[in-house]
Amino acid sequence: MENSSNNLKRSGYNFLSLLNDIKRRPEDAANELGVEIEEINAIIEGRKEISFELILKAISIWPVNPRDFFLINDDCPNGVKIMRSKESIQSSRIMDRGGFPYYEYRDTAMSSVSLFRPEWIEELCYVDNNDAENTKVQWNKGHFMHQFTYFIGDVNYYYIGEDNQKKVFVTKTGDSVYGTPFRPHTFTTRINAEKNGLILALTYGNKIAADTQQELSAIGPELGIQYHLDFETIEKAFSSILKFSIDAASISIEELSNRTGIEESRINEFLIGTFPVPGFDTIQNLAKALSINSRDLLPPDIIEDKILPKTFTDSKRWYYPSDSKAYEMIELSQSRNLPFSKSLEINILEESNDILDLKVGLHQWLYNIGKSPIRLNWKLGEKIYQENILPNDSVYIKPFVEHSMRGSGKLMVLRIGGRMTGDAQREFSNLSKHDAHRAINETQMWFDAKTEH
Amino acid sequence: MENSSNNLKRSGYNFLSLLNDIKRRPEDAANELGVEIEEINAIIEGRKEISFELILKAISIWPVNPRDFFLINDDCPNGVKIMRSKESIQSSRIMDRGGFPYYEYRDTAMSSVSLFRPEWIEELCYVDNNDAENTKVQWNKGHFMHQFTYFIGDVNYYYIGEDNQKKVFVTKTGDSVYGTPFRPHTFTTRINAEKNGLILALTYGNKIAADTQQELSAIGPELGIQYHLDFETIEKAFSSILKFSIDAASISIEELSNRTGIEESRINEFLIGTFPVPGFDTIQNLAKALSINSRDLLPPDIIEDKILPKTFTDSKRWYYPSDSKAYEMIELSQSRNLPFSKSLEINILEESNDILDLKVGLHQWLYNIGKSPIRLNWKLGEKIYQENILPNDSVYIKPFVEHSMRGSGKLMVLRIGGRMTGDAQREFSNLSKHDAHRAINETQMWFDAKTEH
Repeated sequence: MENSSNNLKRSGYNFLSLLNDIKRRPEDAANELGVEIEEINAIIEGRKEISFELILKAISIWPVNPRDFFLINDDCPNGVKIMRSKESIQSSRIMDRGGFPYYEYRDTAMSSVSLFRPEWIEELCYVDNNDAENTKVQWNKGHFMHQFTYFIGDVNYYYIGEDNQKKVFVTKTGDSVYGTPFRPHTFTTRINAEKNGLILALTYGNKIAADTQQELSAIGPELGIQYHLDFETIEKAFSSILKFSIDAASISIEELSNRTGIEESRINEFLIGTFPVPGFDTIQNLAKALSINSRDLLPPDIIEDKILPKTFTDSKRWYYPSDSKAYEMIELSQSRNLPFSKSLEINILEESNDILDLKVGLHQWLYNIGKSPIRLNWKLGEKIYQENILPNDSVYIKPFVEHSMRGSGKLMVLRIGGRMTGDAQREFSNLSKHDAHRAINETQMWFDAKTEH
Repeated sequence: MENSSNNLKRSGYNFLSLLNDIKRRPEDAANELGVEIEEINAIIEGRKEISFELILKAISIWPVNPRDFFLINDDCPNGVKIMRSKESIQSSRIMDRGGFPYYEYRDTAMSSVSLFRPEWIEELCYVDNNDAENTKVQWNKGHFMHQFTYFIGDVNYYYIGEDNQKKVFVTKTGDSVYGTPFRPHTFTTRINAEKNGLILALTYGNKIAADTQQELSAIGPELGIQYHLDFETIEKAFSSILKFSIDAASISIEELSNRTGIEESRINEFLIGTFPVPGFDTIQNLAKALSINSRDLLPPDIIEDKILPKTFTDSKRWYYPSDSKAYEMIELSQSRNLPFSKSLEINILEESNDILDLKVGLHQWLYNIGKSPIRLNWKLGEKIYQENILPNDSVYIKPFVEHSMRGSGKLMVLRIGGRMTGDAQREFSNLSKHDAHRAINETQMWFDAKTEH
């Protein structure tokens, strides 16, 4: 209830902010939408829900989108959302492939605030060999989302390698894999397994999800595909990033040469994509001339494979925090192209205190993969919370919530950046701190018509 | 009409993609939403609009947002949207400040596809001096959007300098300024002016707009403000970026030291924010150990002022393309923190041909600031278009549309990145080209239940 009145308030701010953006005062909006100003004010002040009719009217007269009138809801007002094992079981769906039951899917913790779409999946198809070409195996077509997978039991993971050939990763508990969007894949149980193989199939959206995918789709296929830069090699990546920036500025090579002191022929070499990427000094020089930052011209450090299998034994371990050693961290598969996606298995080693020793600027998803309950402590505002996370319970935690896990057990943790990390966080950090507060909840008109300053 | 059926189709893809993400087949969706599967299929196939009731039902049972069901509409299916001077005049609103008429606002070209919110504004308040403390002047509070302003006539621009003191930029035609969000400002006409001063006040959203602002707002003020990194100096910026990445990975300084061969004491120095930023080799070394790219650790090259006034005489000029010299480009005020925001005054020099000599991966807004009509040529699909852009007409052009301007006249152009440039474009470029095509319009279930592969 508290939450829904809060959503109504946020919805009002959102409406005001939309009017501000198109420079309409409440009286202009009332006038153009053909309603009383009282209605506009009631919506702005969070006393009244905006009607769908009014939204349809607004999009018919202003170049705005229905989407713009709706919020991302906060279904997690105390910072943590737990899905109990029992609820997961209730969400069970058996999925056929090739006409036979192939997977059992169950939901796990998911919040409307974040882009996690995580599933628990049991492999109902048995294979009696580790042949990548096994005809029992039913491949999917790949999907839009990134996928991190954690393996439990005797699971075979089938994927397409860099050489375009089918591959099998014969996994054991604790192995993991990151897979790029749209890569076809499938999973089976090996026939001698004690139990059906199990995976935590953690799909999620990153920077091209949601609004961004929508914009790309509105721009359309013919134009939109041209955002695709050639990242086949580091040299080609640098070349295509540089070309994109030069075109964006409509700067001539002659002018760029004048500004940087780099010969035109040398700049033209950079644009071919087979010459070595120049040194950092040259990149800084080019960036300055293009009125951008060096980071905007840097290619990725390496070109990664699209599928990154990692065995548990290859996964690095360390204690954290160094002094208290409350946790043993085990680093699972992760991509350097996703700087804000981090996957860990965590051994909980501390039982004796409830100090909040973790805080992470990423959305987090946790799953109790062990046999014992874990005590989860967290704090929001002045309030301290504690919940027992039982085996097979899963949890979503908002970014920056101070928390800790206590007991003796095991969690699998995936962290993702959501929409704010990277470019957006840097833009946010370019504001003064006072202005950053305003950016979170803009609650005022951009001017005051009546009072003198 | 064609466009609305296209929107219905896109809306169907969007709904399918949303169901894919939460791993619901049409039959699961029908079952859980309590409707017939025929209705679900009709929505997916673009034969039926999804009802608002069904959306409300969906958000009551799934952790998704009403926003997720709505599109960014394409109001610009042929790539270009023109607003004629006459329509701009019709949108006139007189805005009071301090109880008196202070501005006349008029809309200019704006599309639902892009984040431009550009206005033409006449300054109705006269000042008889250039005193920053003039009491006639009515300041606003600043606003969420970035603002690029182009000045026409005798305009005074008032702003708050880095020293927190009020300043005046006494402008002439062709001067320009970039202003960071939330910085208070105001404009007046100098009293001896022949005509009222005029500005093109081009506000726009960048990376923290739209969905991202929504997510930030749903995360809430207490947690959300912690995304704000200290960008006061380059050293502090590096330190806070590095700290954010170390926390995100829950890596101990000891482990980071083991991986990089950099002494713990040296890493701790990096985290203080007063030591010099290390060389690029060290940044590459740290990035590898953190399983990210160097670009993710690089601070901005310089810390910029929040307001960037630029006189026309200080604005660099060059011919473009170098060989044909069809245009003279004049580089207006722009921020290095906004690598994909580019502002130009363009002198059109070529009348004789209609070769399409411009293509830019940015959203573009154009305004005819001259006295003669300009011929705008563009191409989308197989079709060639041509329109005369008259004085005071304004135009929106989608990214990557091949185009050219011909005649003898002057345009002011602002280009912005929208949602796709930067991080999102790099993520998109990490897909194979075939998969990138799929990302634009996902039209299929992620698997086929019936046929064997």
